[in-house]
Formats: sequence, structure tokens, C-alpha cells
Amino acid sequence: MVKTIYVLNGPNLNLLGTRQPEIYGSDTMADVEANCRALVEPLGFGLKFFQSNAEHQLIDWIHEARNEACGLVINPAAYTHTSVAILDALNTFESPVFEVHISNVHKRESFRHHSYVSLRADGVIAGCGILGYELALRRLVQLVEPA
Amino acid sequence: MVKTIYVLNGPNLNLLGTRQPEIYGSDTMADVEANCRALVEPLGFGLKFFQSNAEHQLIDWIHEARNEACGLVINPAAYTHTSVAILDALNTFESPVFEVHISNVHKRESFRHHSYVSLRADGVIAGCGILGYELALRRLVQLVEPA
Amino acid sequence: MVKTIYVLNGPNLNLLGTRQPEIYGSDTMADVEANCRALVEPLGFGLKFFQSNAEHQLIDWIHEARNEACGLVINPAAYTHTSVAILDALNTFESPVFEVHISNVHKRESFRHHSYVSLRADGVIAGCGILGYELALRRLVQLVEPA
Amino acid sequence: MVKTIYVLNGPNLNLLGTRQPEIYGSDTMADVEANCRALVEPLGFGLKFFQSNAEHQLIDWIHEARNEACGLVINPAAYTHTSVAILDALNTFESPVFEVHISNVHKRESFRHHSYVSLRADGVIAGCGILGYELALRRLVQLVEPA
Amino acid sequence: MVKTIYVLNGPNLNLLGTRQPEIYGSDTMADVEANCRALVEPLGFGLKFFQSNAEHQLIDWIHEARNEACGLVINPAAYTHTSVAILDALNTFESPVFEVHISNVHKRESFRHHSYVSLRADGVIAGCGILGYELALRRLVQLVEPA
Amino acid sequence: MVKTIYVLNGPNLNLLGTRQPEIYGSDTMADVEANCRALVEPLGFGLKFFQSNAEHQLIDWIHEARNEACGLVINPAAYTHTSVAILDALNTFESPVFEVHISNVHKRESFRHHSYVSLRADGVIAGCGILGYELALRRLVQLVEPA
Amino acid sequence: MVKTIYVLNGPNLNLLGTRQPEIYGSDTMADVEANCRALVEPLGFGLKFFQSNAEHQLIDWIHEARNEACGLVINPAAYTHTSVAILDALNTFESPVFEVHISNVHKRESFRHHSYVSLRADGVIAGCGILGYELALRRLVQLVEPA
Amino acid sequence: MVKTIYVLNGPNLNLLGTRQPEIYGSDTMADVEANCRALVEPLGFGLKFFQSNAEHQLIDWIHEARNEACGLVINPAAYTHTSVAILDALNTFESPVFEVHISNVHKRESFRHHSYVSLRADGVIAGCGILGYELALRRLVQLVEPA
Amino acid sequence: MVKTIYVLNGPNLNLLGTRQPEIYGSDTMADVEANCRALVEPLGFGLKFFQSNAEHQLIDWIHEARNEACGLVINPAAYTHTSVAILDALNTFESPVFEVHISNVHKRESFRHHSYVSLRADGVIAGCGILGYELALRRLVQLVEPA
Amino acid sequence: MVKTIYVLNGPNLNLLGTRQPEIYGSDTMADVEANCRALVEPLGFGLKFFQSNAEHQLIDWIHEARNEACGLVINPAAYTHTSVAILDALNTFESPVFEVHISNVHKRESFRHHSYVSLRADGVIAGCGILGYELALRRLVQLVEPA
Amino acid sequence: MVKTIYVLNGPNLNLLGTRQPEIYGSDTMADVEANCRALVEPLGFGLKFFQSNAEHQLIDWIHEARNEACGLVINPAAYTHTSVAILDALNTFESPVFEVHISNVHKRESFRHHSYVSLRADGVIAGCGILGYELALRRLVQLVEPA
Amino acid sequence: MVKTIYVLNGPNLNLLGTRQPEIYGSDTMADVEANCRALVEPLGFGLKFFQSNAEHQLIDWIHEARNEACGLVINPAAYTHTSVAILDALNTFESPVFEVHISNVHKRESFRHHSYVSLRADGVIAGCGILGYELALRRLVQLVEPA
Repeated sequence: MVKTIYVLNGPNLNLLGTRQPEIYGSDTMADVEANCRALVEPLGFGLKFFQSNAEHQLIDWIHEARNEACGLVINPAAYTHTSVAILDALNTFESPVFEVHISNVHKRESFRHHSYVSLRADGVIAGCGILGYELALRRLVQLVEPA
Repeated sequence: MVKTIYVLNGPNLNLLGTRQPEIYGSDTMADVEANCRALVEPLGFGLKFFQSNAEHQLIDWIHEARNEACGLVINPAAYTHTSVAILDALNTFESPVFEVHISNVHKRESFRHHSYVSLRADGVIAGCGILGYELALRRLVQLVEPA
Repeated sequence: MVKTIYVLNGPNLNLLGTRQPEIYGSDTMADVEANCRALVEPLGFGLKFFQSNAEHQLIDWIHEARNEACGLVINPAAYTHTSVAILDALNTFESPVFEVHISNVHKRESFRHHSYVSLRADGVIAGCGILGYELALRRLVQLVEPA
Repeated sequence: MVKTIYVLNGPNLNLLGTRQPEIYGSDTMADVEANCRALVEPLGFGLKFFQSNAEHQLIDWIHEARNEACGLVINPAAYTHTSVAILDALNTFESPVFEVHISNVHKRESFRHHSYVSLRADGVIAGCGILGYELALRRLVQLVEPA
Repeated sequence: MVKTIYVLNGPNLNLLGTRQPEIYGSDTMADVEANCRALVEPLGFGLKFFQSNAEHQLIDWIHEARNEACGLVINPAAYTHTSVAILDALNTFESPVFEVHISNVHKRESFRHHSYVSLRADGVIAGCGILGYELALRRLVQLVEPA
Repeated sequence: MVKTIYVLNGPNLNLLGTRQPEIYGSDTMADVEANCRALVEPLGFGLKFFQSNAEHQLIDWIHEARNEACGLVINPAAYTHTSVAILDALNTFESPVFEVHISNVHKRESFRHHSYVSLRADGVIAGCGILGYELALRRLVQLVEPA
Repeated sequence: MVKTIYVLNGPNLNLLGTRQPEIYGSDTMADVEANCRALVEPLGFGLKFFQSNAEHQLIDWIHEARNEACGLVINPAAYTHTSVAILDALNTFESPVFEVHISNVHKRESFRHHSYVSLRADGVIAGCGILGYELALRRLVQLVEPA
Repeated sequence: MVKTIYVLNGPNLNLLGTRQPEIYGSDTMADVEANCRALVEPLGFGLKFFQSNAEHQLIDWIHEARNEACGLVINPAAYTHTSVAILDALNTFESPVFEVHISNVHKRESFRHHSYVSLRADGVIAGCGILGYELALRRLVQLVEPA
Repeated sequence: MVKTIYVLNGPNLNLLGTRQPEIYGSDTMADVEANCRALVEPLGFGLKFFQSNAEHQLIDWIHEARNEACGLVINPAAYTHTSVAILDALNTFESPVFEVHISNVHKRESFRHHSYVSLRADGVIAGCGILGYELALRRLVQLVEPA
Repeated sequence: MVKTIYVLNGPNLNLLGTRQPEIYGSDTMADVEANCRALVEPLGFGLKFFQSNAEHQLIDWIHEARNEACGLVINPAAYTHTSVAILDALNTFESPVFEVHISNVHKRESFRHHSYVSLRADGVIAGCGILGYELALRRLVQLVEPA
Repeated sequence: MVKTIYVLNGPNLNLLGTRQPEIYGSDTMADVEANCRALVEPLGFGLKFFQSNAEHQLIDWIHEARNEACGLVINPAAYTHTSVAILDALNTFESPVFEVHISNVHKRESFRHHSYVSLRADGVIAGCGILGYELALRRLVQLVEPA
Repeated sequence: MVKTIYVLNGPNLNLLGTRQPEIYGSDTMADVEANCRALVEPLGFGLKFFQSNAEHQLIDWIHEARNEACGLVINPAAYTHTSVAILDALNTFESPVFEVHISNVHKRESFRHHSYVSLRADGVIAGCGILGYELALRRLVQLVEPA
């Protein structure tokens, strides 16, 4: 069995740690990646960690994951609310998918309350800061390798 | 500082493990409580774990938690979507609140897509099965006792 | 096979026969119970007949019915329109469920046109006065014991 | 007093018993008519039983019923949701009207949740199979000839 | 030039004068026709006056009017609110069209506030009783034969 | 009995005859007034004819009409769609009220499809050009002095 | 005549004076009761003052008030927006009902703008702080015992 | 400190006492003014009491009140529901504002359920008859001159 | 196997070729039928080609097709948007169904954007002129007789 | 050619410079007028600058502008969102119209997001402070006197 | 005249033939291209066939087609429902445009029922499998080179 | 202080001057850039002027502007209405932002009435042709370098 997990990040997340640190904290994408890696590698999983501002790039990675990954964690950022194309890509992926949001999107503007990705995701974690990635991975690992 | 965490469960969750096990699994409330306890007690936290089918009972426990708890995890079940009274009670609670749903409510009927509790919760975890409780507790502990 | 039928009545129905008799008639809950009993006992069925103003009490009786009843008739009254919790409880009940309304709710205020209970009920009878209970029982018996 | 009851059936009901028997059963319109007749004739009532796919034919029968009938049972089928003209015709009929649906329309597509006919009907019975006709007739007889 | 005017009447108007006379008055379709004839014949116009409960019959008459009529007055009754087919038929008619309602539909149920026919009609007259037909004809004549 | 009729005209109608004559024609308010007068004076009615761009002025005239008029024709123009205050004023007037629109408002922008005034008016005439005023007066006279 | 007034308070109001005092002030339920009593007892009225977090308890008190009270003041708190059952209970109460909100609910979240209770209440007082109770009682007394 | 209170009344209130007395009572604006004066003058406050059917006049008085008044009571009547301009004027006024409606607007047509003025008002009193003015003044005085 | 295809046409299509030829072209129903026949007969299929302005006639032909046809092409014209009854009839037909519109309905009024028939049709072809019928038949033949 | 430009200002703008200066700045209407004059007079244009709280006064000035002005700049303030009458007046004005808002209305309450005036304006400038008037005039001049 | 046709395919269509073959079949983009080529090349047309997951790439190809193509067939996939940018690009293309969907989007989730592309497309073909491309090309050729 | 201004242009604007010149004029992006440069360079500002059809490219430029620019003018074209990602990018930019549309989007299709970018922009200029860019720059300069 493939034992690689894809962690995908959407638009503007490359700025994590540099914008509005009082809200999003001072950790960067690199820190998030390090945390994720520290969690899953000891369990024998590989990790591919990506960020892109481009919708099509995210789609391409999801397509790639179809053969390469046993699970996928995605923080679709703004595309959460607008991208049917990412939903369609995820619909072609047959292993577990988890959706992560650093802040609690349900407390923000109403257009952030709807998620196309949630229509496909197995689970959704919002408002747990960057720890949300690790929480998602814990559940993903549990599903992929039940005790 | 108070070091007790309240875990509250709403209507019909007393049947957990006995109804639709193919969806909700065969673990019961007692199993969930045991898992939670196993996670937080070694970290020096106490745990109060409750379930009720009564909205007012949940409100009373939230009131009690105002003095007794350093954080609160709630699976409001059906009251998620209908109870302004529980939202108001949570608004009087000043420590972290996490909302847990065993299934991914966003994939179910549209009336389950809106949550009054999310307007107050610091974070929301849905679709992670009963592991969701532990994930919520991990984030709660991190907030209450940052490393 | 269990041969008991539960008949549950929601909020304010304890006043039946005493409020607005020109609309609801002068029969009371006791009369309704007597009529129901007169119908099903000769057919070999037991009957449990309850009324409560408390949502959680109705939920508890539905839970009880899971093991005790071969069918359930419910007049959820105002909870028809607001209680996802009762819907969820009914979703755990696997035998036939019939929803009864004494008046024709479809002719009243628009917020009475939507029923959460109808999403689960096998059948709905509205506007037949208290005879509606008997009509529902007739159908219930037919389903449970087809000729 | 006129002692005839009209039972009217709308579009596609001529196929009853031949289409989707797993849902609608194998009874035909003729069976329904026989059941109805068996119920009301011993009570001294006449019965006129009609089916048409044409909206105007149903309207004409309702007009006829104004002078000929002491009550009316109608299964408007698809016209339930679209025909203001049938509603207007029923508004000119002064004796009791009952609306019957074989399946529970409230569990089907959302456009089937609204009924123009319910705005006039004294009562509505849905989801009781073809027994619904008899249940409606029982209530109708009770209203017309109270014990 | 053709000098015939068509006056079409929709469903349930055959009952005019016999139902709810306190609202609709005691004049019948025959009276309306006589009034219309008395108005336009002295001006050298012919009149064809029809009523039908069938949508398709009204469509057929509108088609006929394309060659036979210099103008058309229609009281579409309930089809006002539901018939795109009548709208489409009227869209093929190139001379003036006036829509008449005996009562003021804007004061009735909200589903009577929308008219498909108004999207094509040159003018609309509502709430003027049966005099509305004559008022519509006066305007029609003015358009067809300006002084 | 008072035998004066008020004809009130709302904002921008002072420009009638000078703006968009291809739509509204070249007749002016003075022409409309002359036509109205020519119709009702021979029948023994007085006429007061007013136009104002000010909502409050229209309200004042309606108040005045309460004692002075046996009927009222109003072309509220833009205030049709926005003025609850004019509706409330008309609600205090107890004799017949007719609403006139020169063009067929139902064919224009959707915000012109709703009329507050129609909630009070006995009848509505739209799309009959300035002849609409005379048609309204004919109906008004018929109501006030039935033959 | 019965001369007792019921004052009912809904969920979370037991915390009055202890939560968000900058918004709700530091007066408690006991203070409110004392103020109410000081107002009505000198006028010869008795007062029953209750608070509950339970919807059914409020319903029970309203039922009790049907025989015991000449008027009722209710601050339904969160149940204002969600409880059809309380509305139905109040609909069985035939003496004056006044609805009180301490804050101006119309300035808060949009789901607080709708009140089921207002559909029955004779009057509504919002945003007058705890003085609102006394204002409501003044009006209630005026209605019950007009000078 | 300025010790004058402005009481403003909107359109059609000049007819108070003369229209629909069974609903609005037989008291007039002059009576309301006298009651208000009798309440606040003994407390050392001046009172300016105005009524106008003109939106701009109400705006002008609110502007004037910015320098002249320590508080403002307004019954905006129909402008409640339609006037953003009055809301904007009130937004420039920095002392307390109370909104009064003689009837319970929440029980009337749905377009009367929304109030622009409530977005600014400190409190709202509806359905207390003309006593509502005095109740508002009591609260206003309490805010301006706390005991 | 039955090898007949039904082609059904709804209201106003009898005028094809005579109304608005600049939009709909100058081909008539007879031309469309000839084209269809020329396409399918050489492939060994029979063709029944009908047009009616009557909803019930279309329903009757669909019922007939249940035994007689291996596929069905329907241009429901205006009934596309309003007829649940035709949808229900098509739901009883078990072979392929294709929906054709001569013009692109999606560019026309918004009420033409919804199609009840599309909820059942296997495919939809709009805006291809009368060639749309042939395109639909090509797909139908492909489904019925895969190469 | 007429070379006068009208600049119209709606309700509450007379307070500009005195209310909420932190938002609207300390410039007054007189300052705005001076700036406008300084811009257009050197280019050979006359300027008429008005402000009114009265809707009808604004309408009257727009009517006047029909003969007197080669262009019009309007800051309709609150009437932006509520006045169909001003829209209708502007629709009779045939030269360029520009709409100015000092603040960015799109960031404020949702009822400020819709503008009737924008349906007629050639251009809209919002959120540029009082410089917005000059920006609008620059575009207006460019349109009226292209280089 | 240019005799090249562009066939554009949107996101996720590169997976055609490999994902959900029971729904989308086992044909690939290459097969579709071959079919299209086999159809149009014998008629003397060139074909450019593209697929991209990137919205901007599709826009670039549409821009290129403005000079290079006599017609365009597009299967916008998920961008159908979300891309105003593609609609705007198509609005700059002056030759025929046909929109193709392999499945019948009208039977899927409601957010797939709206198409921005349909607002520009001359025709739309949905639910005809990959044959839909050929059907669209047939109509395109007919428009470009009428017999 | 950085003294560079970014001017960003969204999809399809590369065609400016070549498509629909009667609407958008014959000026190209190069002309717009020249005009902008001619305005700001004499004032000591640098200018970066970009156009892209790719959402992610626009996001990247906004990110770049965070360190490089003192202000930003953006014509987001179609992304105005659909891109939450661009809004989020702009939310990380702390200097002034102005939104420009060449045409008055408020007069076009309703889906063009909503702008995500306006939720962040300091000001919005629409319908001023390409002069709008210069107007936006004038305001931007005023904010950045107040006189």
C-alpha cells in the first residue's frame, strides 16, 4: 500500500506567519510542514506538503495524489467557498480527505460559511489554529491504519 | 487555576453505539468518556462528562462550568441547529469552547449546515468519529496550557 | 413480536378539550386515549399513551419505544416545526411512525407548514380532528399485521 | 340531503398498480374504487369515482359535485403542486373536502412539499397507501353524519 | 381590416353569478357578454366571447384570434398565475391584449400577485368588477381605431 | 352626500407630455384634468385634480379628501413602490380608491411589480395610457352611484 | 376577579447581574422581582415571579396562569426566537401579555429580530433595561384596571 | 446641561383620535402631548412636541435636537419601515433615542416587521397604546438623570 | 424489441414556421417530422410524431409510449417549466428520454431556466434549432442500439 | 450649448463637517462647493450647488436641470437606497449623471449596497471622500467637452 | 474564411476514461478528439482540441480563437458554474459557441443547475455522453456552412 | 517611504481597445498605462502596471505589493464577482486600495452587482471609462501624500 499523505494549502497561505500574526500566529508554512512531518514520519508515512495560490495547481496535485497518496489534508483557504473544480477533483480521489481551516470560518463573513470541499471531505476541522493540521492527520492515520 | 474540563453531549447521544453502528460505530458514551479521561488525566486535568436529552440540563451544566471549568467540549447534536438558548449560555462562559460532531454534518440535510454553537465556539471538529472528542481536547489543552 | 403501540402527544395538548373548543372540540386527552384503546385492544395490541410539554420527555419515550413498541403515533404539536432532536430520536426507531395533527396545519401560519417529523414519518394525517389518531392507528395496524 | 360522495383522482393515477408496484403496490384504481364503495355504500352513501389526466376534467367534476355531492375526496397527484385552478374550483364547493396522497409527499422532492389544495382541504392524509382513501372517507362520513 | 374582438375567460368563470355573489356579484357570463356586445357592436366591431376551464382550449382560441381578431381581452382566472403556455400563445398574437380580473388580485394570497399574462398584456384592469371588461374594451377600441 | 372626486398624481407626472412622448404620449396633466372633468361634471360630480412631487403633500390631500370626497383616483407614480405612508393615509379614507398607472408597470423592472397602494385600492388600472384615469372614474362613479 | 400577575423569565436570566454587567447591569432577578412587587402590590395586585431555563417549565407556568392570573409579563430570552410551543401556550391565555427584552434585540444578530412571542403579545418593550419590566406592568395594570 | 426632550411624530399621526378609534383610541396628539408634559415638566424637563407628514421636516427637527435636546422619543409611523434618511439623521444625534409604536407592529403585515429606526434606537416600545410615550419618557429620564 | 420512437411536441409548436420566423425559422412541424423520419427509418426504427397544446394529451401519449416505444424525444415547450404531471408521466417510462428546445432557454426569462422535465431526461439539447430533434435522435439510437 | 453643471446633495449632508468628522472629515458643504467651483469655472462652466433634506426638492432641481444643465452630479445620501422617485426624475434628464458617495457604501450595512440611482447614473464614485465630487466633475467635463 | 474549430475542455476532464467509468464511460480525451476530428475534417474543417485545469488557459485559448476559429465548442466542466471570466472571454468571440456537458447537469446538485456559459452559448447539449461533442459540432457546421 | 503604485488588471482586459470599442473605447492597456504614468511620475511616484487573465498571478502581484507599493489600483474585471482569494490577498495589503471598473457594472447583469473586492477597497470608481484609473490615482496620491 502507498503510505504517503498529501497536505495541500491554498491561496495566501504562503503569507502565514507574516500577516495578521495576532490572528494567525507567527508560525509559517515551514513550521506547519515540520510539525506534520514530525507526527507522521515516525508512524511510517511519507508526507508531501504543498502550497499554491493557483486553483489549477491544487487540482493537479489532487490528481497526482490519486496514485501517490493514501490520504489527503487540504486547507483550501479562499477556494473553499468558490471552487467547484477542486470539489470535482477531490471527488475523483478515493482515499480519506480532511479539510482544515486555521480560524473558525463560521464566525466570519457569511460567504465563508459555505464550503464546496465539505461536500466531499470525510471530516472538517476549523478554528484549532495550525494544530488543526496535526489533528486532521491523527484522524487520517487512524482511518488508514486502524489499530 | 481550575483544571477541570467539561464534556457535554446533547440529545440522542445516549444511544451511541446502539443505533446505526455502521455509521456511528459501536463505541458508547462510556467508551468516549474513557478515551477522554485517558487523554486529559495524565496531563493533570479533571474531567466532567455528561449527556442529556434536555436542553435546559445542558444549559445548567454550562452555567456550572462557568465557575468549575477551564474549558468545555460540546457535542450539541440536534440542538446545534435549533438552540439559541445554548448559544446564549455559552456566551456567558469565558474559557475555550470546542464543538464536536461525530459525522460530517455538512454532507447531511441542509438544515444541519447551520450551527448556532459555531457562532461562539473557538473551534469546530466534524466527521472525525469519536476521535473528534480527543482532537478537541488536545486543542483545548494547548490553549489552556500553552507549552 | 412486541405488540404495543406508543401514542405520544406534545406541548399544550394537555389542554385539549378546554381551550378553543370551537376549534379543537371538547374531547380531552383521556377521551382520545379511550378511543385509541377501544380500537387497538380488541385487535390484540397494547397501548401506551403519553403527553408531555417537555421535548426531552418525548425523546425519552421514543427511545423507550425502540424496544417496547411495534409502532408509534405522534402528535408533536409545536415541536413539529422546531425539533430536530425529536426527528433524530425517531430516526433511531425502526418500526412504523405516523404523524397526526388535529387541525389542518397547512391552512395556518406559514411557519407551521414545515415539519421535521414528516421527514421520518411513514404517513401524515392532518385536519381530521381527534379521529386522526384512530385513522393513523388503522394504517399502523395494517402495516404491522397485514391481512 | 344529497348522499353522494365524489372521489376524484388526478394525472397518472390511471397507471396505479402497474407502475413502480414496489412503491405504490399492485392495487389498481378499480381496487381503490371497490374498497371505497365497500365502505360507504353500507352506510347509505352513493359514490362517484373518477380519474383523469386533464386538469379541466377534474374542475368540471368539482363543479358537478357542487350540486351532486355531500363531500369530496381528491388525490390531485401532480396538480396538487401546480393547479390554482383546482383550488379555485374547490373554493366554490361548500361541503367537506379531503386530500389524499398515497405516498408521503413530504419526504420527496421539495417542489412536492407545497399543496395548493391543502389551502382549501379540511384534512390531508399522506403516506397511508391506498388505505388513505378509506381513512379520508371515514372522516368525511363522520363530518357529514355525526353520530 | 379584421374588426372582430375576442373576449376569453378562464377556469371557473362559468360559475360567475352563482358562486360567492357577495364578492363576484350576481351577473353571469351571459350578462358580461351582453354588456360587451352592447358596447362594441354599435362601434362596428364583431365580438367572439368564450369561456373554458381547459388551458389548451384557451390556447387554441388565441391561435385562432391571430387571423380573426384585431384585439383580445382575456380574464385568465387561475391560469394567470401558472400558465406559461398561455403567455407563449399571447406572444404570437400581434394586436392589443388586455388582461381583466374581476377582483383586485393584489389584495388576495401572495401567489395571486404574479401574472404571466401581464408580461405580454398591453394593459391590466383589476378590481373593477365585471365593468372591467367594458373598460378594457374601451381602451382596446381606442388603440385599434384612434379618433 | 359629498359629490367631489379627488384625482391625485405623484412625482414626475408634472412632466407628462414633455418627457419620452413616444412612451407617455404628448398629453399633459392639463389634458388629463380636462378629460376627467369632461367625464364627471356632466354626471353632477365635482373634481379636484392635483399633482405633487412631495409625498407629504399627497398625504395631506388624502387627509383632506376624508371629509371632502366621495372617491379618489391616484396615480402614485414612483411612490407606488416605496410609500407605506401613502398606504396608511389611504387606509384612513373610507370611500372607493382607484390606482392608475399610465404604462403597464408589470412589464418594467421588478421593483415596479410591487405596489403598497394596491393593498388598499379597490381597483387597479395599468397600461391604458391616460385613458386609464377615465376608466377609473367610470368605475368610481358606478360604485358611488349605482344605477 | 383574579388580581395576580405572572412575570416569567426564560433561559440564562438566572445569571442576570453576574454576566456581562457592562451590558446587562448589576441588578439580579431578585432585584427585578423586588421592583415589580414594589410597583404592583400597592395597587392591590399579587405577583408571581419565576425563572427557568426549561421551555416546558415556562409552558407549565403559562398554563397555570390561565386560571390564576389577570395578566402576564414574559421575558422569553432565547426562546423568543425559537419556541412555537411557548407561542401556542400563550395563545391559550386570554388576558393581556407583554413581552420584555432587557437589550434592544433589533440591534443584535439577525436571528434575534424575529419573535414568535410577538405574534401573541399585546405589547413589546425592548432595550429599556430592567426598567422594561415595570413599564410593561404599568401598561398591564392600565389595561386590567382602566381608570 | 440641556434639559429639553423632543417628541417627534410621523405621518398620519395628526389623525390620531379621529381614525379607527376602536384600534387607536380616541385620544389625540394634543392629549398625548399633555400627558407627556405632565410627566416630564414636574421633573424639570422641557418638552418639544411635533408632528409632521413630511420626512424632511422630521429630519430637520432631529438636526435641531442635536443642540437642543437631551433625549428624543420618536413614533416614526410609516417612515419606520422605509426611511434610511431618518435613520441617518438619528445616527448624528448622540443622546438617548426611544422608538414608540401605538400598536404592536409585529402582529401586522410583514413589511411592518422591519424598522430602520430600531437600528439606532436605544429602546423600542410597541403595542402599549399612547401610554407608550410615557413609558419611553420614563426610561429616557432614567438614563439622562440616573437616580 | 419494440423499435418505435415517440417524438412529442408541446403547446404552441403547431405554429412553428409561422410565428417569429426570424427566431424559429420557417420550417414547420411537418418539416421536423420529415427530418426525423429520414434519420431513423433507414436505421430500422418506426416514428410516431405528435403535437398537442393539451397537457393531458401529452401525458396520454407518454403512457402509450410505455408499451409502444423504445425511446422518447420531447419538446415540452411551455410545459417544461410548469408541468409536474408530465414529469410524473415520464417517470413511469423506462426507456431513454431526451428533451429538446429549439432556442436556448437559458438566455431567456429566468422562469424558463428551470425544467421539471430535465429531472427525468437522460439528456437535454437546447438552442440547436430544429436540428436539435435529429441530434437527440442520434443519441437515442446510440443508447438503444449500441454499435 | 448650456454650460452649467448641477451638483445636488441629499439628506443630512448639511451636517457635513460637523458630524463624525473622524469619518467624514471636517470639510463642509461650502468647502465642497468651493472646490467644485474652483475646478469647473476656469473651464468655462457654471455651477449650481444645492443641498436638501427633502426628496421632492431634489426632484424639482433635477427637473430644472433638464433645461438648465449639461450634466449633473448627485450625492443622494440615504435616498440612494430608497427613492424610485429620484431615479424616475433622473430618467428624464438626458445629459450625463454621476453618483457620488463620500464613504464606501459597499462596506456598510447591506441595505446600503443597492442604489436606485446607479440604474441611471453613467458612473459611480464611492469612498473617495469629498474629492469624489471633483473626480466626478472631471469625468463629466470630459464627456461633455471631449478634447 | 477561417475554417478551424476550437474544442475546449475544462478542469478534471484530463481524467476522462479513468474516473468513475460507470458514469463517464471509458473513452478518453484522445478518443473524443479522434471522434471530433473524424467528423469535421472530411468536411474541410481544421480542429484544435485542448484541455486545461486552469481557468486562465481556457481564457487564453478563447482569445486566440477570436482570430483563428469559425466556431467553438466548450465543455467548461466545473467552471461552468463559477467563471464569469470565461463568460466574458466568450462574449468577445463573435462566431458560434456551443456548450457541452457529458452528464445531465440538471439532475445533479443544485449548484450545477446554473451556467454562466449558457448566457453566451448559442446552444447547450447535456447528458449525451461524449457523443455530445459530435452533436455540437454538427450544429456548429450547419450554422457556419448552411447547406 | 516606498513611492511605487501598483495598477493591476484582471481577465480579458488585455483585449481592451479591440473588443466592443463602441462600449469600451479604442484605448488599449498601453494607453491606460501611459495615462497613469503621465499622471503619477511627475508627482514623484513610480508605477508598476500589470494585466493577467490568471487569478493566481494577480494574487502574487498583490503579495509583492505588500513590500513594494504605497498603494494599489485594481480593475479585477470578472474576478470582482467571484474571487474570495483576491479579497483575501488584498486584506493582507495595508496601504490604500482602489477598485476601478470601466463600465458602470451596476447597470449590467445582477451577478455583476456584487463585488468581493469592494469589501476591502477604500474606494470604488465605476463607469468613468479609462479615466477611472486616473481618478483613482488622484485619490490614492491624496491619501498617501496629503497636501
